[in-house]
Amino acid sequence: MDKKLVEDISNAIKLRMERSKKSVPVGVSNKHIHFTEKDFKALFGAGAKPTLYKQLVQPGFYAANEKVDIYGPNGVFKNVRMIGPCRSYTQVEISMGDARILGLKPPIRDSGKLDNTPGIKIAGPKGSIEIKHGVIISKRHIHFSPKDAQEFKIKDGEEARVRCGIAKDRELIFERVLCRVSDKYALEFHVDIEEANAGALENGESVFII
Amino acid sequence: MDKKLVEDISNAIKLRMERSKKSVPVGVSNKHIHFTEKDFKALFGAGAKPTLYKQLVQPGFYAANEKVDIYGPNGVFKNVRMIGPCRSYTQVEISMGDARILGLKPPIRDSGKLDNTPGIKIAGPKGSIEIKHGVIISKRHIHFSPKDAQEFKIKDGEEARVRCGIAKDRELIFERVLCRVSDKYALEFHVDIEEANAGALENGESVFII
Repeated sequence: MDKKLVEDISNAIKLRMERSKKSVPVGVSNKHIHFTEKDFKALFGAGAKPTLYKQLVQPGFYAANEKVDIYGPNGVFKNVRMIGPCRSYTQVEISMGDARILGLKPPIRDSGKLDNTPGIKIAGPKGSIEIKHGVIISKRHIHFSPKDAQEFKIKDGEEARVRCGIAKDRELIFERVLCRVSDKYALEFHVDIEEANAGALENGESVFII
Repeated sequence: MDKKLVEDISNAIKLRMERSKKSVPVGVSNKHIHFTEKDFKALFGAGAKPTLYKQLVQPGFYAANEKVDIYGPNGVFKNVRMIGPCRSYTQVEISMGDARILGLKPPIRDSGKLDNTPGIKIAGPKGSIEIKHGVIISKRHIHFSPKDAQEFKIKDGEEARVRCGIAKDRELIFERVLCRVSDKYALEFHVDIEEANAGALENGESVFII
């Protein structure tokens, strides 16, 4: 036996065993929109501000009461919820199934990477806009605080494997899950509804980095 | 090192390597219905017979021209396609997302295992029925001919791991995939649309048993 190989394999197994001691809670995202302040005001009025509907797990982020309608070339979704607060780019996050209904082919992307993404028409109570790009299918990812990242021995930008629904009918392993580390984050594995359903996953359920 | 353990591990790796030489094509299922002859006639008329819309990969099975509307407690789907020919039980196969829209909580089941599954109202052009049970979320599975099963060293009823979308953004491994072997089957991995979208899988795409 090659000693170096045996050592590498046993180290990899050890790391997996350490990582899988601690679980990560699942956060399931329905379609939603982030707005710049400018786009928000165009849709909701010059004096409007987004208002809290429900605090999210990620610190400072919240589901807002404000909703809009989005119009693709083939279909419409009414009452799509905004996630607040406002940010430096307007971004529409939908599932692959949603994309087919709208008639769009957005890429699978990390948040904020909007080059060559399709645009869409958006209608609010006080006005309408058409964004030239900004529609994405979110790449599944895990948010880590620096402390969590240290515990899992994970670096920002690394990709991880996530095991879900152990011993259940829809057990699966998501490969190439993007890891994002920031002191603004709380530990959470983000998937969209179709990804959640493929694993019969529920909001808050425990999954494991392996 | 424990010699027996090393041998077991190397045999398992060898089997995986052998299996993963040959790919399996994906078949993506949208919601659909199978009917008994009696239920079909109640919906489409005493003299009606299902008619071919499109041949499926599984020999003898076809998407029929005949469509029905299904009514759950909270929602409706119009124009749900029948899969023919008629069989010994009426069965409605939907996704978890579909189930939420209808307001039903069907279990994840192998085809034909309909104990304690919810019922639903079904309306056709010539009449309506209400089935007492028969709505399921299909357990993902692979169909094998006996020859395919032999090549993959798979037995009927065994569960396998299936690797999809290698090196792509939505790469994943489906665990506990039910293997069904019959001389009536052709090699195909069946998933629903949400499972396909979780892996960015398309109809006919190659996946691997590992």
